[in-house]
Amino acid sequence: MTQRRWTVYLSGEIHSDWRERIVNGAAEAGLPIDFSAPITVHADSDDCGVAIFGPEQDKFWHDRKGAQLNAIRTGTLIQDADLVVVRFGEKYKQWNAAFDAGYAAAIGTPYITLHPPEHDHALKEVDGAANAVAREPEQVVQALAYIIGGMMPTVQSEAAE
Amino acid sequence: MTQRRWTVYLSGEIHSDWRERIVNGAAEAGLPIDFSAPITVHADSDDCGVAIFGPEQDKFWHDRKGAQLNAIRTGTLIQDADLVVVRFGEKYKQWNAAFDAGYAAAIGTPYITLHPPEHDHALKEVDGAANAVAREPEQVVQALAYIIGGMMPTVQSEAAE
Amino acid sequence: MTQRRWTVYLSGEIHSDWRERIVNGAAEAGLPIDFSAPITVHADSDDCGVAIFGPEQDKFWHDRKGAQLNAIRTGTLIQDADLVVVRFGEKYKQWNAAFDAGYAAAIGTPYITLHPPEHDHALKEVDGAANAVAREPEQVVQALAYIIGGMMPTVQSEAAE
Amino acid sequence: MTQRRWTVYLSGEIHSDWRERIVNGAAEAGLPIDFSAPITVHADSDDCGVAIFGPEQDKFWHDRKGAQLNAIRTGTLIQDADLVVVRFGEKYKQWNAAFDAGYAAAIGTPYITLHPPEHDHALKEVDGAANAVAREPEQVVQALAYIIGGMMPTVQSEAAE
Amino acid sequence: MTQRRWTVYLSGEIHSDWRERIVNGAAEAGLPIDFSAPITVHADSDDCGVAIFGPEQDKFWHDRKGAQLNAIRTGTLIQDADLVVVRFGEKYKQWNAAFDAGYAAAIGTPYITLHPPEHDHALKEVDGAANAVAREPEQVVQALAYIIGGMMPTVQSEAAE
Amino acid sequence: MTQRRWTVYLSGEIHSDWRERIVNGAAEAGLPIDFSAPITVHADSDDCGVAIFGPEQDKFWHDRKGAQLNAIRTGTLIQDADLVVVRFGEKYKQWNAAFDAGYAAAIGTPYITLHPPEHDHALKEVDGAANAVAREPEQVVQALAYIIGGMMPTVQSEAAE
Amino acid sequence: MTQRRWTVYLSGEIHSDWRERIVNGAAEAGLPIDFSAPITVHADSDDCGVAIFGPEQDKFWHDRKGAQLNAIRTGTLIQDADLVVVRFGEKYKQWNAAFDAGYAAAIGTPYITLHPPEHDHALKEVDGAANAVAREPEQVVQALAYIIGGMMPTVQSEAAE
Amino acid sequence: MTQRRWTVYLSGEIHSDWRERIVNGAAEAGLPIDFSAPITVHADSDDCGVAIFGPEQDKFWHDRKGAQLNAIRTGTLIQDADLVVVRFGEKYKQWNAAFDAGYAAAIGTPYITLHPPEHDHALKEVDGAANAVAREPEQVVQALAYIIGGMMPTVQSEAAE
Repeated sequence: MTQRRWTVYLSGEIHSDWRERIVNGAAEAGLPIDFSAPITVHADSDDCGVAIFGPEQDKFWHDRKGAQLNAIRTGTLIQDADLVVVRFGEKYKQWNAAFDAGYAAAIGTPYITLHPPEHDHALKEVDGAANAVAREPEQVVQALAYIIGGMMPTVQSEAAE
Repeated sequence: MTQRRWTVYLSGEIHSDWRERIVNGAAEAGLPIDFSAPITVHADSDDCGVAIFGPEQDKFWHDRKGAQLNAIRTGTLIQDADLVVVRFGEKYKQWNAAFDAGYAAAIGTPYITLHPPEHDHALKEVDGAANAVAREPEQVVQALAYIIGGMMPTVQSEAAE
Repeated sequence: MTQRRWTVYLSGEIHSDWRERIVNGAAEAGLPIDFSAPITVHADSDDCGVAIFGPEQDKFWHDRKGAQLNAIRTGTLIQDADLVVVRFGEKYKQWNAAFDAGYAAAIGTPYITLHPPEHDHALKEVDGAANAVAREPEQVVQALAYIIGGMMPTVQSEAAE
Repeated sequence: MTQRRWTVYLSGEIHSDWRERIVNGAAEAGLPIDFSAPITVHADSDDCGVAIFGPEQDKFWHDRKGAQLNAIRTGTLIQDADLVVVRFGEKYKQWNAAFDAGYAAAIGTPYITLHPPEHDHALKEVDGAANAVAREPEQVVQALAYIIGGMMPTVQSEAAE
Repeated sequence: MTQRRWTVYLSGEIHSDWRERIVNGAAEAGLPIDFSAPITVHADSDDCGVAIFGPEQDKFWHDRKGAQLNAIRTGTLIQDADLVVVRFGEKYKQWNAAFDAGYAAAIGTPYITLHPPEHDHALKEVDGAANAVAREPEQVVQALAYIIGGMMPTVQSEAAE
Repeated sequence: MTQRRWTVYLSGEIHSDWRERIVNGAAEAGLPIDFSAPITVHADSDDCGVAIFGPEQDKFWHDRKGAQLNAIRTGTLIQDADLVVVRFGEKYKQWNAAFDAGYAAAIGTPYITLHPPEHDHALKEVDGAANAVAREPEQVVQALAYIIGGMMPTVQSEAAE
Repeated sequence: MTQRRWTVYLSGEIHSDWRERIVNGAAEAGLPIDFSAPITVHADSDDCGVAIFGPEQDKFWHDRKGAQLNAIRTGTLIQDADLVVVRFGEKYKQWNAAFDAGYAAAIGTPYITLHPPEHDHALKEVDGAANAVAREPEQVVQALAYIIGGMMPTVQSEAAE
Repeated sequence: MTQRRWTVYLSGEIHSDWRERIVNGAAEAGLPIDFSAPITVHADSDDCGVAIFGPEQDKFWHDRKGAQLNAIRTGTLIQDADLVVVRFGEKYKQWNAAFDAGYAAAIGTPYITLHPPEHDHALKEVDGAANAVAREPEQVVQALAYIIGGMMPTVQSEAAE
């Protein structure tokens, strides 16, 4: 069988190191993956619109200019992805993560959610359209290793026990 | 010009009377609209899966069975809709509302969000892909009256002042 | 909310009365559903092609002519459906039922499978893309009553116990 | 004319060496093909879900977790393929092979079925939507050689006699 | 099962009465079909463009204006159709019939070709993507009666003998 | 052949009576057409956004709110249309008319442009993707009469001489 | 601006050297084009099906097997193409060329027809959906040179005089 | 994260150096972008059709031949693009720029408009479907730097003050 590169978009929470753990884990496992993500510098993603196109007096339009600029990036990258990982962290509402999940579902792109069990009930519709629900980034790496290369986990992750 | 019926899906919060205010307002204005919505009886939408297909020991699968049954309804109705109204209430995380917004965006169906200003920043991506942001259900009725029949509001809504 | 007619395609096994039980159950419950199905007279669905377009010496082409004529009906009706019910009976291989499930999955139409538990493992991929797995036709009727009108089952079906 | 790489997905039976015979045959003929396939280690494809995301008491959900993880791989690879080969072996029900055929048909991807004549009648709908029906893997290699490079078979395969 | 109206587009030859034979046959059989067709008055279909939008000196553009006006009708009606019947008569090249067949194939609409056996070899690609090949209009009526209502022919048509 | 209703969207200039001439002409000819159009009260289409959702200090956002509200109507109606008529008047830039033409072209909906000859060169790309170029609304009515019912013009319009 | 490779499919007549003239002309002009085409060895394209999958007594099915095998190639290559050139020669009916044109039109791929003026009237619908009508292969090369690199012809081709 | 090349189509005005300023700015910033554009030699884009396919007496068809040849290029490149920049200059009507914007909107490709403030009101519908509105080419370069690499502008452009 022929080796193939996969494209994986990492959507959601920007306040913890979950992306690094997935990207590094995949690199260690030698997986042929191109990862993509939104801009994760919080202040920049808020202010990019006004910094480039000029200031707004009204915070609502300040936000709008940034959101629509970010949407050029995120829309393109989600449409490019073979798989989306959607992370819901412990704080913040992260409606944009759920938005990305709905977007992926509508275009038929599979996604894996990544969140602690306390969100299970609130996320049941989002999880219900997902192909898997992970608790830890390492499980996502294991899933990628299996999906891409058929590799089974040698050590079961703590979360899976 | 020919009169045409419109189909509007009312997504999101199920703990206030916003749907009734829109449906009644549209009826009073004589608007030719077929409204649709998810099942809004909270307990039923949680338990429908196990009530019909049998109980689950694990709450996660209990939720899954319900969520996937509800998804048959909601997916069909959103795909049928000309317009989606997405309501984010003051409590709860309402990730499913954001999911529906992402779904609508991906299939090119326009949507109007309905939420108080305190959610503006957290919802900036969801609002950024919306065609309008309303504060009160009456504004949605006014928008529908304009979209469908070109009627301008005679009294400006309180929220718009 | 506005009443809406639903279209449900009943795919699969043609040797038991499961279609009648669903259609009659839905009628008794007053559900606004247009049901559709393949031609279920086994001999006719085998021989329609040669009866109309002329005989074939080779059984392979005899079958082909019938299969492609039937495909005009089934393809159109599945594409029209809001929901597909896919029945796997106790005998026969029913690859065409699985084919219909794959077709529905690919075009984003939700489906419910209906089969006894002994097929669970063999059907795990087909069930994995389904929105629900039913054991008895009455559960499908209950699911339809819930999906369309939010009605919860008053008596839990035997299969769900 | 320019040389082009083709992508061929090999769906279905995992208990015989048909994939190796096609892949090796294509390599010997120097055909520019990237082959892809599901994970063919039976136990792993059954247990991957629980091994990564944690055990389930109920076999039904054990299977579900595996099936949905496998579906990320298979759905992506079928959508990538220029052509799908769908193998039905002599044992097992292989509903997932028929599911893949229906999926390919719905997205307009051509497929070739590969099965012994005794399945002809049961597979008539699946064959009816196929571009060819092969009996032996070597015929698939010959078909690929013709499709890609216009090469006619020098020795007619035994099955074709 | 619910009765459903079908839409059938009758493409191709405009110099014989094949359309009338199908439409009348379907009416006699009481089939719920909306038939559609191109404008079949030859002179009008040639001259409509210049008659409405003004004359052209060059016959090439005279034809172009007519062809593009006719294409508004034919494109819309083919896209509306559940099934297309494509007739190749004994004279004329009827490239537009083959064009319609290719169009139908590309959008996944099934079609039946209708032509005498002497065209079989020249039409093999067009027939190869068809769901059936008929010789006489009465066979098309029989096929429609079967597809829509499961009715088998009581008298086998002469052509099928 | 069965009578069918057609849906025609009238896009573009809002400062002359061209829509009335088409709608009235079609009514006089008894054509089965549902016409649709944007809101054509200029002031309302400018101010609808702020009248409903509240005022803006910045004219740019005042316009944006109106434009996005109008887009809900126009996007839905263009997607519904079988045919679009795009009118470029003698004054104003009417970029939104050209936008609608591009939108129609991209979704495969045929359109007829309606403009005086002095715009021919500037509109060559827009005309190049159109199915017809009309000079007078009466030619559009004649085209509709032909498309829908095969009626040829009895009196050639002045513009066509 | 960045150089980009284009993919051009050469459909239709297989009895003259028009493909070579285009491919060689493009090579001489240094155009970055990947050309593709059907199998143009007439006997092989007729017999490939039976040579690989076994003989048929009935010529109709002999042709069918070949046509459907060829369709795997042609369907894939047309879907890959940025542009299709469709050649109608002086002899033969070449319905498959018109079929390919209809297919290209339906999926929104532009095409150029290439045929002598005596076919103009019979091909008016096929030409009406084309982006250009050429008389000589050299004009196609000139068109490609312009489309890809903006190069204007230095010597006007004889056919264009 | 993996580096990815982006494709950006530069649509619209051909009489100023805005394309060069964007392309050079992106090159200086080292952005991985493939830029594409229509043929921008005005006389060639007008005359390409007749130069290649032969002269026309009527200017209308002279323009048509050129426009449809240009459309092969522009349609392909817009469909390829991740992002479109649409420039409206100070003179000329540039309906083709608005056409391209409508086309991009319909296929879900994001676009940025680039025009002076005096066009704001006339372009409000076109801007309303855009992801950003720029005044100067340098702002487009800054936007690209942010979208692709998350780089914030070090010096705010004059236009943004």
